[in-house]
Amino acid sequence: MAKCRVGLWIVGAKGAVAVTTILGLVSLKKKQSSTVGLASELPRFQNLDLVDWSQIVIGGHEIRKTTLLDEIQQIHEHNHVFDSNVISKCKTEISKIEKNIKPGILVNVGETIKKLADKKLLQKKETPKQAMSRVMRDLKKFQSTHELDNVVVVNLSSTEPAVDVKKIPKTWDKVEKTLEKADTCPLAASSIYAAAAILNGMPYVNFTPSVGSSCTAIEKLANDREVCHMGRDGKTGETLMKSVLAPMFAARHLNVMSWVGHNIFGNRDGEVLDDPVNKQAKVTSKDQLLGQILGYSPQTLVTIEYIKSLGDWKTAWDHIHFQGFMGTPMTLQFTWQGCDSLLAAPLAIDLFRFTELSARRGETGLLTHLACFFKSPTGVIENDFVRQYQLLETWAEMVGL
Amino acid sequence: MAKCRVGLWIVGAKGAVAVTTILGLVSLKKKQSSTVGLASELPRFQNLDLVDWSQIVIGGHEIRKTTLLDEIQQIHEHNHVFDSNVISKCKTEISKIEKNIKPGILVNVGETIKKLADKKLLQKKETPKQAMSRVMRDLKKFQSTHELDNVVVVNLSSTEPAVDVKKIPKTWDKVEKTLEKADTCPLAASSIYAAAAILNGMPYVNFTPSVGSSCTAIEKLANDREVCHMGRDGKTGETLMKSVLAPMFAARHLNVMSWVGHNIFGNRDGEVLDDPVNKQAKVTSKDQLLGQILGYSPQTLVTIEYIKSLGDWKTAWDHIHFQGFMGTPMTLQFTWQGCDSLLAAPLAIDLFRFTELSARRGETGLLTHLACFFKSPTGVIENDFVRQYQLLETWAEMVGL
Amino acid sequence: MAKCRVGLWIVGAKGAVAVTTILGLVSLKKKQSSTVGLASELPRFQNLDLVDWSQIVIGGHEIRKTTLLDEIQQIHEHNHVFDSNVISKCKTEISKIEKNIKPGILVNVGETIKKLADKKLLQKKETPKQAMSRVMRDLKKFQSTHELDNVVVVNLSSTEPAVDVKKIPKTWDKVEKTLEKADTCPLAASSIYAAAAILNGMPYVNFTPSVGSSCTAIEKLANDREVCHMGRDGKTGETLMKSVLAPMFAARHLNVMSWVGHNIFGNRDGEVLDDPVNKQAKVTSKDQLLGQILGYSPQTLVTIEYIKSLGDWKTAWDHIHFQGFMGTPMTLQFTWQGCDSLLAAPLAIDLFRFTELSARRGETGLLTHLACFFKSPTGVIENDFVRQYQLLETWAEMVGL
Amino acid sequence: MAKCRVGLWIVGAKGAVAVTTILGLVSLKKKQSSTVGLASELPRFQNLDLVDWSQIVIGGHEIRKTTLLDEIQQIHEHNHVFDSNVISKCKTEISKIEKNIKPGILVNVGETIKKLADKKLLQKKETPKQAMSRVMRDLKKFQSTHELDNVVVVNLSSTEPAVDVKKIPKTWDKVEKTLEKADTCPLAASSIYAAAAILNGMPYVNFTPSVGSSCTAIEKLANDREVCHMGRDGKTGETLMKSVLAPMFAARHLNVMSWVGHNIFGNRDGEVLDDPVNKQAKVTSKDQLLGQILGYSPQTLVTIEYIKSLGDWKTAWDHIHFQGFMGTPMTLQFTWQGCDSLLAAPLAIDLFRFTELSARRGETGLLTHLACFFKSPTGVIENDFVRQYQLLETWAEMVGL
Repeated sequence: MAKCRVGLWIVGAKGAVAVTTILGLVSLKKKQSSTVGLASELPRFQNLDLVDWSQIVIGGHEIRKTTLLDEIQQIHEHNHVFDSNVISKCKTEISKIEKNIKPGILVNVGETIKKLADKKLLQKKETPKQAMSRVMRDLKKFQSTHELDNVVVVNLSSTEPAVDVKKIPKTWDKVEKTLEKADTCPLAASSIYAAAAILNGMPYVNFTPSVGSSCTAIEKLANDREVCHMGRDGKTGETLMKSVLAPMFAARHLNVMSWVGHNIFGNRDGEVLDDPVNKQAKVTSKDQLLGQILGYSPQTLVTIEYIKSLGDWKTAWDHIHFQGFMGTPMTLQFTWQGCDSLLAAPLAIDLFRFTELSARRGETGLLTHLACFFKSPTGVIENDFVRQYQLLETWAEMVGL
Repeated sequence: MAKCRVGLWIVGAKGAVAVTTILGLVSLKKKQSSTVGLASELPRFQNLDLVDWSQIVIGGHEIRKTTLLDEIQQIHEHNHVFDSNVISKCKTEISKIEKNIKPGILVNVGETIKKLADKKLLQKKETPKQAMSRVMRDLKKFQSTHELDNVVVVNLSSTEPAVDVKKIPKTWDKVEKTLEKADTCPLAASSIYAAAAILNGMPYVNFTPSVGSSCTAIEKLANDREVCHMGRDGKTGETLMKSVLAPMFAARHLNVMSWVGHNIFGNRDGEVLDDPVNKQAKVTSKDQLLGQILGYSPQTLVTIEYIKSLGDWKTAWDHIHFQGFMGTPMTLQFTWQGCDSLLAAPLAIDLFRFTELSARRGETGLLTHLACFFKSPTGVIENDFVRQYQLLETWAEMVGL
Repeated sequence: MAKCRVGLWIVGAKGAVAVTTILGLVSLKKKQSSTVGLASELPRFQNLDLVDWSQIVIGGHEIRKTTLLDEIQQIHEHNHVFDSNVISKCKTEISKIEKNIKPGILVNVGETIKKLADKKLLQKKETPKQAMSRVMRDLKKFQSTHELDNVVVVNLSSTEPAVDVKKIPKTWDKVEKTLEKADTCPLAASSIYAAAAILNGMPYVNFTPSVGSSCTAIEKLANDREVCHMGRDGKTGETLMKSVLAPMFAARHLNVMSWVGHNIFGNRDGEVLDDPVNKQAKVTSKDQLLGQILGYSPQTLVTIEYIKSLGDWKTAWDHIHFQGFMGTPMTLQFTWQGCDSLLAAPLAIDLFRFTELSARRGETGLLTHLACFFKSPTGVIENDFVRQYQLLETWAEMVGL
Repeated sequence: MAKCRVGLWIVGAKGAVAVTTILGLVSLKKKQSSTVGLASELPRFQNLDLVDWSQIVIGGHEIRKTTLLDEIQQIHEHNHVFDSNVISKCKTEISKIEKNIKPGILVNVGETIKKLADKKLLQKKETPKQAMSRVMRDLKKFQSTHELDNVVVVNLSSTEPAVDVKKIPKTWDKVEKTLEKADTCPLAASSIYAAAAILNGMPYVNFTPSVGSSCTAIEKLANDREVCHMGRDGKTGETLMKSVLAPMFAARHLNVMSWVGHNIFGNRDGEVLDDPVNKQAKVTSKDQLLGQILGYSPQTLVTIEYIKSLGDWKTAWDHIHFQGFMGTPMTLQFTWQGCDSLLAAPLAIDLFRFTELSARRGETGLLTHLACFFKSPTGVIENDFVRQYQLLETWAEMVGL
C-alpha cells in the first residue's frame, strides 16, 4: 500500500517558529538533524503510525515580504543557532517550499501586526468573507496540486490583540453574516483561518494565544463537519515549568504565597507583544493555570518585555515564595534560558503529526489528549503537566493497539 | 468507641528534624500551627481515618546530651524560624516528652557521629545484641507505660557511614549470629533499631539514607513478622525538584547533557555529611534517580558542603544543561532556599500517620505507596514524583472507601 | 570639655526605615547591637570625632497614627528580623522617644500617601506657609527642650509623586510667595521640610527620591544661610550593585547591550510605589547611572513591583547581557535578597553622623563627599561607587588630621 | 620614522585562549572584528603609543599535535562562537602563523598535561637546561627571521601542578645548577620559559596560575637583566566579580559570613584542572583575595569542576551570605556565563600591548601597574579592582604625557 501524503499548512509561514519548523523538517528528511526535542519520536509513541518526514509537503500563508532563507539566515546569525552546513544542505528544498507560500490575511490583526505587513497586502480591499474564501481556495489548491490525502493547518503567526469572545455569536450561521463587512466582524484572522480549514474539512491546530477555533461557534462547526482541531498557545518554557512545579507545591501542601515571572526576549514575537493590546492575551494564558492546580489564587505577576539584544533567547526568571510548615517562608527561583523557536518548532511538528493521525483515524472535535502541548488547552481543566501527558499516553496506548 | 492511642518513637529525638517534628505536633495539638506542609491534611486524604494530634504520644532515642527545649531555642535563634509565642505555649508539654527520651546506641555509627555522643554512652560496653535488646525493652516499656495501641519507630538520626549491604547475610538467623561481637557485626545502628522495632511487631520508617530496614534479611524479617516498614531518605528539597523536572525533560524528549547540583548548608546534618564516609550514602541517594527517569545517564555532579553561616537553611543551586531541537544547547538553573527541618518534619509526620494507618489496617512488608516521600524508595523503581504520588492517591482511594 | 548633644529629627519617623534606625540607635547605646553595617564605624573613619550613641536625641514628624513599638513589632513578626530580647531591652527608651514625634505635613504628597494619614491631619486646614512655620516651630522647640547643640533633619518618608523641578522658581524669595496658597505651591512636603530646616540653620539630608533640597532655590538658600545638606535617594541594594558592576564592564571595554532589573518587595514603600505617579521618581533614580558610568546608553528596564508576601525583603533580579570580544554575547545575572530597612537604617545613621560633623566643622552647602550613599547624589556626576567612596575617604583624611 | 615590528610569542600557542587571541588579532588587522573587550582600545588609553595590529608578528610553542585552524574550527562548532565568515577571511594568514609554532617543553608539567602531548615530544630526551636553551634559540630565531624590534613572551598554556616555591633557590646562579638533571630541577616549564625569555632580554607575561617568573630567583634575574615582566593568572570572570563585589561589602561594613563559588566548564583547561594537583594552584589563586580586601577571612569554598557539555562556556554560581545591621543575614547570588577564551584573549592582547610599550620605554622588573589583569598580581597587595585599575590609569597618564 502506498504511503499517504499529507500537507502541513503554516499560518505565519515565515515567522521564526515557522521557518525553524520548516528547516527542521527538511533537515530531518535529509538526515541532517537528530530527533531530540520531538516527543512524537519517543519510544513510547513508536507503535503509532505517524507520518514520516518524507510524506510531508509544506505550504502556508504569510503577510510579510521576505523569504524563508533570509529569515533562517537571520535567526542563525542573531542567535547562534542552526549549523551552517545544515542550512546549506537544505537550501534547494526550502526554495521549493517558498513557492507554496501565499499572501495571508489581515482581518482584525491590530496596528502592530499591520505595520509588519507587505504594503500590497495592506492595499487589498476584501471583506472578511472574501478573505476567508481566498484562504479556502489556497488550501484546496495546495491539496490538489500536490495530490495530498489531507492538509493540517497550524497557526504559528503573531499573537493578535485580545478578542472579546462573548461578542462572537454562538452559531456559525450567525457568525457568517458578520463577515460581510470589516466593521461588524468580531473574528480576527486566526479564527477566519480556523473556520476556512474546518469548512474545507481540514484539521486545525492553534499554537498561539489568539482565539483561533476556541469559540463556541467554531467548536460547533468542527463537530458538525466532523473535523478535529485543538488549541491554544504552545507550552514551551516558563509555563511548562509552572505546570510541573505547581503540582509539586500542591502535593506537598506547601502554600504558594506569590509567584512572580519575568520574561525577557527580543524576537518579532516580543516586538508584537510589546504592544499592550497584543500582550494581554499572552499574559492571561501564562497566568491562569496556577489557580487551577493549586486550588487557591496566590498573588501572581507575569511580565513579558522586549529586550532586543536577547533575540530569540527567551529568558524567564521566576520567583516562587511559599510557606512551609509552621509558617516558614521559603523560596524557589529559576532561570530558564531557551531559544524560543527551537523550543516551539518541535512541538508544532509533534502536534501536526498527532493531529494528522487523529484525522486519519476519524477522530473529530477537540483533541483534548493533546492538552500537554498547550498553555490554555481548550476544553481541558487539568493543568498538571504529568497528568496531561498521561492523557496523551493513554490515547497512544489505545491507538497503538 | 474510644480512639486509639499511638506512640511516635523517634530515633535521633533531639536532632533538628526531630525537635521540629515534636514542636510541630505539640503546636498542632494546641492549635498554634496551621497544617500547611502536611500532605496528610490535604482534602484528598480527608476520608482516611488518620490519627489526630491528640492521639499521639512521643518518645525516642538520642545519643547526645542536651534537651529538647535547648535544641528548639537554638534552631529558633540561628535560623529565624518558629514563633517565640508558639514555643512558650508548648514548653510544658515538651518538657514532659523529655522524660520519654532514652539513650541511643552507637553501633557502627562512625567517628564523626561518635564525637557528638554523650561521654557516658561512649563508655558503655555492650555488644550489638545487647544494644538491640535494650532498644526493644525501651520500646515495650514506652508502649506499656503509656498504654499505646501501637508504636511507630521513625529514624530521624544523622546519616551513618555507607554500609556494604552485600556483606549483610541474607537471612535474619545468620545476621543475628553476627551481633554477638562488635567487630563481626555488619549492621549499623539504623538497622539495629529497625530490627528491634520489627521484632517487637512495631512499624519502622527510615527517613535517612542509612540502611535501616533496607536489606534482604530485615525485609524478610518484616514479612515473616507481618510488620510494615518503608524507607529511605526523605525527599525534601533538591531531589524533590529533580523528581519533578527530570520527567518534564523526558516527556519533551529534551536531551539532558549535564545536571549539576551544589548543596550548601550548616546544620548538624551538614557537619556529619562533611565527613566523606557519611557523605557518600547521601550523594548516591540524591543522584541515582536521573538515570531511571531519563532512560540514559547524563553527566551529573552532586556536592554537599558544610557552610556554617547558613545553619538549617539549605540552599541548592542546580544547573541543567540540555539539548533541544537541532542540537541547540539550553539551560535551566534553579536555586532552592528551604529550611531543612521545616521541610522534613511535616514529611516525618505524614509518614508516621500513613504508616500507623497501614499497620492498623493490617498491611505488612514494604509500604511502596509511600514512595513519593523518599529519595530512594525501597522496592520502587518509579522516580517520577507525580507518578509516585498517584500510588499514594490510589492507595488512599482504596483505603478511604 | 562636655560632649555636645545633637538631635536627629526624622521625617517619616514611624516608617520602617525610621523605626529600624531608632531601634538600632537605642540598641547600640545599650550595647545590644554590633556596629556591622555602619560604614562610619569602620577603622578608616576612627580618627573622626563623630558623635557617639549617647549623644543623640531622637524626634521627628509622622503623618500616620501608630506607635513606634507597634511598628517595630510588626516588622519583627512579618520579616523574621530583630531579636525579641533586643526589643524588650529597648522598649522603655523608645517609649520616651514617642513623645518627641509630632504630626507631619501633607503638602502635595499625593493621594496614595494621603490615604495612609491620620484623619485628624487630613482635616487640618493650613497653607503650605503655615505648614512650614509649624515644622520650624517643632524643630526649634525640640532643640530648646532637649538643650541640643544642633539638630540634623533626615527625610526617611515615603516617595512623593514626581515634581517638575522646572516649575519651581529659581530663588527662595519667589518660592516663598507661592506658599501662601495650596494650589500655587510647586513644592511637595519634602522640600518644605528641607526649607524649614535650612531656615532654622539646621542641616538636612534627603534619603528619598523626592525633591527635598535638590532644587536651585533651596540649594541657594542653603548657601546663603551657610547650612549644609545632601541628597538624594539612599543607595541600598540593587543600585549599589549597579554602581560597582557597571564600572567593571566599562573598565574591561565589555559592551553592555541590555540591563534588566526587576525589584519585588511588599512593605509600605512598595505599596506607595505601586502608584505609578510615585514610582516614576524611583525608577528614574535607579536607572540614570548606567549611561554616566558606561559612556553610552544600553537598553534598560527597571521594574518595582509590590509583592505582599515578601514584606521588607526586597529581592532584585538583574540580567545583564553584554558583548565580549569578537561579538560574543555573555550574561551576568544576580539575585539580591536584602531586608530593606536593615540596609537603609545604618546608612541613615552614617549620613546623620557625617553630616553632623560637617555642620560642627562649619561646612556649608552640598556635602558632595557623601555621594556614595545616594542613588542620585545632588551635584555629583561620578556614579562609580569606589570613586565616590574615595571622595569620602579623602574628606575623612583631611578632617581627621 | 618607520613603525616598529614586534613579536608576540605564545606559550601554549594552540590552546583555546591562544587560538582565539590569534584569530582575534588577525581579524582586527583585517577589520573583521570590533575592538569590544580590549581595554587598551578605550578612549582613556588613546594617548599611548601602543602597537597596532599591523605591527604584530605571532609565533609560539605548543606541545600538542594539531593545527591552529582545526582548533579554531572546533571552538567555533562546540561553543557557537566566532562568525564563520570571519574565520574564512582569516584562514590564509593563520596558516602562515602555523609555521612560526615550535614544539614546546615538558619539564615538570605533570601527568595530565603529558597525556596531551605529541608522542614525538615525549620521546625527546633533554635536560631542563637543554630545554631552556632550545626555547632561547627558538625565540632568537623568530626575532631575527622576522626582523622584530622586540618579542614579548606570553604564557597561555595549561595550569601546571602546584610547585613549592620554597624549594626554588633564591638566586639564578643556584637555580641554574639544578637544571642539569630532570630530577633535581625545582622549576616547571612555565619558569623555564620565563627564564629563557628574560635571559634573551625579552619581556614575559604569565597569564596562568603556574609559577612562571614569580619566584625570587627569576624576579632578581629580571631586575639584573633589566627586563620587564608580570603575572599571574588572568582575571577573567568569577574572580573579577569578587574583586569588585568584595570592596562593596567592605566599604559598607557588611560582614561577609561565607562566600561559596562553584565553577563549571568543559574545555581542555577544565580537563587539566580536573586533576587535583593541577587544580590546587587555581583554587588558591581564586580564593586568596577575599581576606585581603575584607580584612578578615570568611568561610570560603571554591570548586572548579569539569562538565563536558559546557565546553568553553564557564558558568560560575556564587552565593554570598552576609550579615547586615542588627545581625540580619542577607544573600547575594550571581551567575556568570562567559565564554572563557573570548574573555581571556582580549586581556592577553591588552597585556601584550601594555608590556611591549613598557619595554620600549625602558621599564624593568615587575609591571605592577598591570595588577588589574591578574588574579594574583605578583608584588601587589591591593585586590580591589577599581583601585588596581587606577594604578593603570595613573601609569597611562604619566606615559601619555
